[in-house]
Amino acid sequence: VQTKLDFPVTAIFFDVFGTLVDWRTSIAREAEILLKPYAQELDWLAFADAWRGEYQTGMEEVRAGRIPFSKLDVIHRRNLERIRARFGLDSVAEETMAELNLAWHRLDAWPDVAPGLARLKARYWLGPVSNGNISLLVNLARRNAMPWDAILGAEIAGDYKPKPRVYLAACEAFDLAPAQCMMVASHSNDLAAAAACGLRTAHIARPDEKGPGKGESAPTVPVDIAARDLLDLADKLGA
Amino acid sequence: VQTKLDFPVTAIFFDVFGTLVDWRTSIAREAEILLKPYAQELDWLAFADAWRGEYQTGMEEVRAGRIPFSKLDVIHRRNLERIRARFGLDSVAEETMAELNLAWHRLDAWPDVAPGLARLKARYWLGPVSNGNISLLVNLARRNAMPWDAILGAEIAGDYKPKPRVYLAACEAFDLAPAQCMMVASHSNDLAAAAACGLRTAHIARPDEKGPGKGESAPTVPVDIAARDLLDLADKLGA
Repeated sequence: VQTKLDFPVTAIFFDVFGTLVDWRTSIAREAEILLKPYAQELDWLAFADAWRGEYQTGMEEVRAGRIPFSKLDVIHRRNLERIRARFGLDSVAEETMAELNLAWHRLDAWPDVAPGLARLKARYWLGPVSNGNISLLVNLARRNAMPWDAILGAEIAGDYKPKPRVYLAACEAFDLAPAQCMMVASHSNDLAAAAACGLRTAHIARPDEKGPGKGESAPTVPVDIAARDLLDLADKLGA
Repeated sequence: VQTKLDFPVTAIFFDVFGTLVDWRTSIAREAEILLKPYAQELDWLAFADAWRGEYQTGMEEVRAGRIPFSKLDVIHRRNLERIRARFGLDSVAEETMAELNLAWHRLDAWPDVAPGLARLKARYWLGPVSNGNISLLVNLARRNAMPWDAILGAEIAGDYKPKPRVYLAACEAFDLAPAQCMMVASHSNDLAAAAACGLRTAHIARPDEKGPGKGESAPTVPVDIAARDLLDLADKLGA
């Protein structure tokens, strides 16, 4: 099924956590590997949910201007400290905590991502527009065969989504008007913010992102394309 | 020939103009295509040399803080205006001038570059640390199969080589100490500046960069590796 778009898109930008990678089961797996000697009975999925649960709070300090921009690795570590006592991890060695913090560099992609991006790459410029830092995104790209043209997003913009600067900095880096760029995400708030900046939008269904049935299976805001996965998106973009 | 390095390198950074791409004959070719209707008798190689001859002058205004950072595309256009009258191009249409300015996005790589980078990619993180802007480097990468992990360099740093910030911003983006990074260039001054920041250095011979015999066939400063081309560099780095 190929669709003729009635608008021209040159570049496609991707949210990463949830949209491209399954952070929940990956973090649970990495935490179990590293923390099992300390906490055999820990609910690893609950640990992943709790760590991710601090995500917006940590970034909001930057977005609100209360602290200067710092890489997501730094914010992940602060968030990990926030939940540390709750999960009985006070005695975990610093070396292990530092290694655990880099679990976000070792997330696995959903199975449609590598083949979908390979098809889209032939026709579009591709870049992550994620809140992840550059080194994190390079590790995820190498692990999951993500063929980025450039790593864009928060670290380039010096602020965090959904602040407009992050989307606009990505368009500017590619010398494109917002209307020539499409933001792809499985989170309606990300797409609403991109649309408000003038970008085209595509929603990807990830119904199990936050646990079975707890992700978005459809957008809750108007979008240009709603797709089941990246292969469906490639079909709909004629790639 | 594999060499055991006595130092560990994780990432390799590349100068682009001259080191990876043959700007001189590429610009001459593009200029001839676009300007022939206006200037049949023009010496296209001399035109390329003159345009490139304004390169350092244009960037020095940014490095000295006299003007804010602007992308190399903007500086290339200012430099083109500087030589415009000298080559009798005052009557050239604005549309053609704008298209000519993007000739720097359509440069061809030296023949060893694609196979050399493919070998190095398997073992090292790779990024351009060039004065070129992101969109220019993406175009060159797509044209010449440069498999970058991230586009680093001037636009990320907000300043131009050989200012230390450009090298150090690249290391920081990859979360690496300078000693874990190697700068690769065919220009000794670029390597001297990188070495002063603590990076490892490798020189690539490009004896014909500025015309036959007018490029550097050997470094004029101390380097960690001197290589004939990227395949020789891959040999020497065990990749």
